[in-house]
Amino acid sequence: MKLELSRVVQGGSRLGVLRGLGRTGRHSLEVPGCLLYTHFGTVPHLTQDTLHTLSSLPSVTQVTLSNIAEHQEVLEEFKSGFRKFAGLHDTVLYCSLHDPATPCPTGYTTNKTVSVWGSGGRIELTVAKFMALQRTVQPDWYQSMADGETWQKNTSRKRVRKSVDRTLAHLDECLLVHQKSQELEGVEVFGVVEGGDILEERVRSARETAKRPVAGFCLDGLQTGSMDQILRTQLITAVTKELPEDKPRLLQGVGRPDEVLAGVEAGVDLFESFFPFQVTERGCALCFSFDISPDPERAVLELDKERDAAGETQQNGDLNLDDQTQMTSFEINLKDKRYQDDFRPLVEGCGCYCCKNHQRAYLHHLLVTNELLAGVLLMIHNTAHYHGFFGALREALANDKLDLLKRKVLRERGGQAERKD
Amino acid sequence: MKLELSRVVQGGSRLGVLRGLGRTGRHSLEVPGCLLYTHFGTVPHLTQDTLHTLSSLPSVTQVTLSNIAEHQEVLEEFKSGFRKFAGLHDTVLYCSLHDPATPCPTGYTTNKTVSVWGSGGRIELTVAKFMALQRTVQPDWYQSMADGETWQKNTSRKRVRKSVDRTLAHLDECLLVHQKSQELEGVEVFGVVEGGDILEERVRSARETAKRPVAGFCLDGLQTGSMDQILRTQLITAVTKELPEDKPRLLQGVGRPDEVLAGVEAGVDLFESFFPFQVTERGCALCFSFDISPDPERAVLELDKERDAAGETQQNGDLNLDDQTQMTSFEINLKDKRYQDDFRPLVEGCGCYCCKNHQRAYLHHLLVTNELLAGVLLMIHNTAHYHGFFGALREALANDKLDLLKRKVLRERGGQAERKD
Repeated sequence: MKLELSRVVQGGSRLGVLRGLGRTGRHSLEVPGCLLYTHFGTVPHLTQDTLHTLSSLPSVTQVTLSNIAEHQEVLEEFKSGFRKFAGLHDTVLYCSLHDPATPCPTGYTTNKTVSVWGSGGRIELTVAKFMALQRTVQPDWYQSMADGETWQKNTSRKRVRKSVDRTLAHLDECLLVHQKSQELEGVEVFGVVEGGDILEERVRSARETAKRPVAGFCLDGLQTGSMDQILRTQLITAVTKELPEDKPRLLQGVGRPDEVLAGVEAGVDLFESFFPFQVTERGCALCFSFDISPDPERAVLELDKERDAAGETQQNGDLNLDDQTQMTSFEINLKDKRYQDDFRPLVEGCGCYCCKNHQRAYLHHLLVTNELLAGVLLMIHNTAHYHGFFGALREALANDKLDLLKRKVLRERGGQAERKD
Repeated sequence: MKLELSRVVQGGSRLGVLRGLGRTGRHSLEVPGCLLYTHFGTVPHLTQDTLHTLSSLPSVTQVTLSNIAEHQEVLEEFKSGFRKFAGLHDTVLYCSLHDPATPCPTGYTTNKTVSVWGSGGRIELTVAKFMALQRTVQPDWYQSMADGETWQKNTSRKRVRKSVDRTLAHLDECLLVHQKSQELEGVEVFGVVEGGDILEERVRSARETAKRPVAGFCLDGLQTGSMDQILRTQLITAVTKELPEDKPRLLQGVGRPDEVLAGVEAGVDLFESFFPFQVTERGCALCFSFDISPDPERAVLELDKERDAAGETQQNGDLNLDDQTQMTSFEINLKDKRYQDDFRPLVEGCGCYCCKNHQRAYLHHLLVTNELLAGVLLMIHNTAHYHGFFGALREALANDKLDLLKRKVLRERGGQAERKD
């Protein structure tokens, strides 16, 4: 894995390509970018065939141990790794610890173990078990074991310090096993930066992790709902300053477009794409504008008008920091009666299958009558829209137009849609 | 609509083609055949694109007023008919009264009205409202209004007689409105044969309906769970004898392969394809064999062995007449632990997307962890398998091998799998 940066803006935003991915080294991923979010290897609702009708999908698929751990025995018997078990097309496989769309209970981490939650309940992982799982899953790249329980407000300094220490110890143990495992030859490890909301601990965690032979860094404990954006930006900026320029930084648990933009400005390269899934599950469609080509005024005005209108009835949607299930100002709620006779596509001009074939009124009716196709169609659109946003983000960086993009995404109101709480 | 029969076996099974379907008259449908079952225009779980990767789909799509009635206002405003509203590809649209996969409460029919149940509750339809709906939906062909409440055991002779009378009166009123509606020019009407389990009433209903200017006949009140197969066959045989040879007969609410075969032998041409959906919803995969080509012995033995094995743990599945949610002997329950390390496709040799790309073990894991893709994949396979069965059925009829096919489907045990209760 090799990060080639073509542009770094004021020590913050980075534009580049992550090359040499996968065991063959044939794959690459543009940054800022995101990984393809999956449940047990599947993008929720979508077959691989449907998925691959979408253009510009990331070349890296994320799976999480919380989905996989309970199936270890079967995977061991299968022998050929998770990629083949899940019938995945040619893709780079990244294995993370937790599902970013599902908050974990806290209080279960010990000095020797972390826990993940599958459908059958909690599974406790020692380093030995964690590494055995990696050998079974056969990812190209995985997140090291980590104590990520310090994201909650009012976590004591002592607990935060312990989490940093534990995570470093886990990393050292994982690396030790890793280096001895022939099966894991060529597989990359990401170290995890912890430190809660305490600046010094974040810096210490970053500095210490950077000393280890890792391919990149996961920034944990900064997820949506854990803190306000100003503090998050301060912490990320302090952390990325400590990290080597030539290795990628993955911000875990952050997916909202405004938070992604702030993360990129603070030096983050990679994100997890669970946000379109959350939007789909609440029956919503992403409709924020990221088109900064010369004359998109009309379309943007149209979209903005709409989001303003939607906002009238859903003003509370954006305020609850702790509830990721609440809708944001980047989406419209298709269950709303206003869409029952709206015969336009979800987003005018969108090239996705859903927008080309169906109208809002039809989606509204599928949703209110609980038709099973609603999730499929919304997931197609939301996935296409979200990955389109990342494409626009890279283009804006390349053309020195990040500010313009920010204004579009934050609705040209100088950041009113940004969360200041 | 014109039925061209190429073969009639012993006054029972009929092989042929229904031509001149749709307003352009370009479409045709082979019989015995089935209509494409949908919820509000969508095959549950599948996009039109995914659906059309399946070969040999019926050219006729069935929608039901129970799904549509509550959306009449929006459809009226939309003006261009349901086919366009639902973004359907070029297809013939057939509109029936009730959803065959959802049993209706009884006790709500009056002399002047029938009721359908949407997501918002009961909707009472007079002939005027029923016909207004047809003008809005703009189907190519619809089922006339009917009092179908006499399928329950122990319905009195008086109630059955009333239902036959009412249904005939409804038909006359519908035809009167139909003939005066310019919008319905070229649209075909199917009359509904009622009569519960009383032979004389069935015969009277058939005879009287046949006197009206209808394009074909719906055989109502004979659905799975209403009576045993011997009685059903007697009634159907008596009814089809009264009906003109050159018009199609659609048996409502019957989808199990054994019951379809019995229906065909009694002179039925058309069925509704809700069965694969029911199988999908209970997490099962159709796996019965219908391959009667010269040397399919090995594959069949394999399948039979499996179904026998599955039967061991699921013997009760077939016995409960009244519960359509119970699994049948034509399917395997993929949630069963036996499949957790079964790395074969659902059906060896099946050409569907699911069987070509995934194994039983993966489906098992998707199901036990409630992954949203499970329904999509199962629906693809079950739909392909079911329509494949109808293709095999026509081929068997053409080649005088219906008996052989029956033995395959009923597992070569002289009908042990047939229900004799």
